[in-house]
Amino acid sequence: MNAEVRDNAVQELRALLKTWTTAAQARDVKTIMSCYTDDVVAYDAIMKLQFQGADAYGKHWAMCMEMCSGEMIFEPGDVTIAASGDVGYAHYLIRCGAKDSDGTEKTSWMRATACFRRTGGKWGIAHEHFSAPFDMESGKALFDLKP
Amino acid sequence: MNAEVRDNAVQELRALLKTWTTAAQARDVKTIMSCYTDDVVAYDAIMKLQFQGADAYGKHWAMCMEMCSGEMIFEPGDVTIAASGDVGYAHYLIRCGAKDSDGTEKTSWMRATACFRRTGGKWGIAHEHFSAPFDMESGKALFDLKP
Repeated sequence: MNAEVRDNAVQELRALLKTWTTAAQARDVKTIMSCYTDDVVAYDAIMKLQFQGADAYGKHWAMCMEMCSGEMIFEPGDVTIAASGDVGYAHYLIRCGAKDSDGTEKTSWMRATACFRRTGGKWGIAHEHFSAPFDMESGKALFDLKP
Repeated sequence: MNAEVRDNAVQELRALLKTWTTAAQARDVKTIMSCYTDDVVAYDAIMKLQFQGADAYGKHWAMCMEMCSGEMIFEPGDVTIAASGDVGYAHYLIRCGAKDSDGTEKTSWMRATACFRRTGGKWGIAHEHFSAPFDMESGKALFDLKP
């Protein structure tokens, strides 16, 4: 694996995450779902331990979009990306939430990990992990932390 | 990348995770820390958004071990692993917790993602993400979910 091939892969993964972020902000579930492999296994921040397969995860995304009525906010901080051959990963903190009906931003910083596989020349997110850390005493998710 | 080389890498990553799990059960922080790269970035389930570097994360591990006095429980379910060249990832659900003073198990199912880099022939965990999902209404971590 020479450096140029590896750097190209990193650029492709950065572009894929940009597509994902723009689609999430625009509530475009179809484009969001085009970023995943069919067999994606997702550990989302809410509700369930895991979502197995693009069909189940697409329904979850659609439900999340219905739940938040205001303008969506998905603002990643610095993204670390590694790739080699047909496998890669990325991790980053992300400020996410939505705007209230009066335009007030309700956001918190979350943690995101994406694991990629390339099949037939096309990269896809084969695994995704979103979360907030919790407080040991109260068992409550910590929504006020800042990087 | 031929299939044999790829399969060898997967076996090496499986062995690394086995070392990690056995060490975590044994409260062996030194061996746990030997599984990470020096520049590991960890999103742990509790307290902070992230721990940057092996020094900070090692102190967090030592504190966690002091916090739980009983026998540790780290039991991974099925582990999915992918590797190519010098990059790999793994994800799995894991039953973790500790035994009470009277021997009662206090555990919950969590989600784990590990992202690996190989440097100088040696694999290490360069990124780790542990979490429990939370309930949207109460904001509380969901400790009673089962796979």
